[in-house]
Amino acid sequence: MNREEALQKVKSHLTEHRYVHTCGVMETAIQLAKKFGADEKKAELAAIFHDYAKFRNKDEMKTIIIEEKLSSDLLKFNSELWHAPVGAILVQREVGIEDQEVLDAIRYHTSGREQMTTLEKVIYLADYIEPNRQFPGVEEVRELSNTSLDKGIIKALQNTMTFLMKKNQGIYPDTFRFYNELILDSRR
Amino acid sequence: MNREEALQKVKSHLTEHRYVHTCGVMETAIQLAKKFGADEKKAELAAIFHDYAKFRNKDEMKTIIIEEKLSSDLLKFNSELWHAPVGAILVQREVGIEDQEVLDAIRYHTSGREQMTTLEKVIYLADYIEPNRQFPGVEEVRELSNTSLDKGIIKALQNTMTFLMKKNQGIYPDTFRFYNELILDSRR
Repeated sequence: MNREEALQKVKSHLTEHRYVHTCGVMETAIQLAKKFGADEKKAELAAIFHDYAKFRNKDEMKTIIIEEKLSSDLLKFNSELWHAPVGAILVQREVGIEDQEVLDAIRYHTSGREQMTTLEKVIYLADYIEPNRQFPGVEEVRELSNTSLDKGIIKALQNTMTFLMKKNQGIYPDTFRFYNELILDSRR
Repeated sequence: MNREEALQKVKSHLTEHRYVHTCGVMETAIQLAKKFGADEKKAELAAIFHDYAKFRNKDEMKTIIIEEKLSSDLLKFNSELWHAPVGAILVQREVGIEDQEVLDAIRYHTSGREQMTTLEKVIYLADYIEPNRQFPGVEEVRELSNTSLDKGIIKALQNTMTFLMKKNQGIYPDTFRFYNELILDSRR
C-alpha cells in the first residue's frame, strides 16, 4: 500500500483537523525514523494509521477491549487511551495490515510501554511534536528531539504525567514504567 | 515504652533539626489518628521512630537491603527511600519494637504502597505536613488534611512526583501505585 492509498483509506475515519494532524505525524515520523534509524516506510504507515480508531464510539471500543482480552487496566483509566490498542486491532482487521512492528507502534503510541522499539518511540514522539501541535512545553520537546529520541520522550512524559496529575487523573501503569525505564537508563 | 523513653531512645540517632521534625510528626500523627480513627499510641510510637535510620551511612543501609532481601528496586531509586524500610528493620532489631503495624508504618512512610492502613497513611501524611515543614504546596495539603486523609495524601503525592520529575528522577513503583489507587478510589 503506497502513501496515497493509505491516506485515502484513513481519511474517512478522521475529522479534517485530525487528518491534518495525521499528515504532520507522518512527515515528522519519517524525519525521526531517518535520524534515529527506524524503518521509514514502516514509520510512514504506522503514522498514517495511528489514530484510525480515534472516533469510534466508546461502547464499540469497550467491547473490543473485553472481547480481545486487552488489559483490563484500560477500562479503569482514561478512555483517551483506548483508541491506540483498539486501533491496532481494527487496522489489522479492516485494513489488512499484518506487520506486527507497525501494529505495535499504533498500539503503544498513547501509553508507551517498557522496551519500546525505535519505531514505536518514533511514532510516540512524532504524535507529540508534529508541527500542528501547540501546547505549553512542546517546543522544548521539539528541541530535545533534535538530538535524542529518549530525551525528547522523557520530557514529553514528564509533561503528560504532570498534566494528568493536575487534572486529578490516574497515570496508566505502562506510561509510568516507560518513564522510569528511560530515566534510569539515562543515568547509567 | 512511654513517650519520654521513646524520645530518649531516638534522640541520639537524629540531628537537632531532625529531632524537632520528629516531635512535630508525633504531635501531628496523634491528631490525625484521633481524627481519622487510627490507634493513637501506635501512631505516637511509629512517628517517634519513623526517621530512626535517617543518618545511617549508605553502605550500611545497602548491606541491610541486600541481606534482608528487601526489594532490589530500592537500590535503583533514590537513596532517600532507604531509611524507611531499613529503619523498620533496625527499630525491631535495636529497639525491640515488635508491633508489625507500627513497623509497617515506619517501613512505608516515604514510599507509600497500595493498600495502606489508616495508621500507615497517618504517618505518611504527618511526615509531610508537620508544623515545621515549609515548602511550596504544604499549606494546601494541610488544609485538605483537615477533612480527608486521602485527599491530603493525593495532593502530597502529586507534589512529590512532580518534584521528582522536575529533577529528572525516577518515581518509585510503590509510590506511583499508591497514587493510582487513591485517585481511582476517589472517582468511584
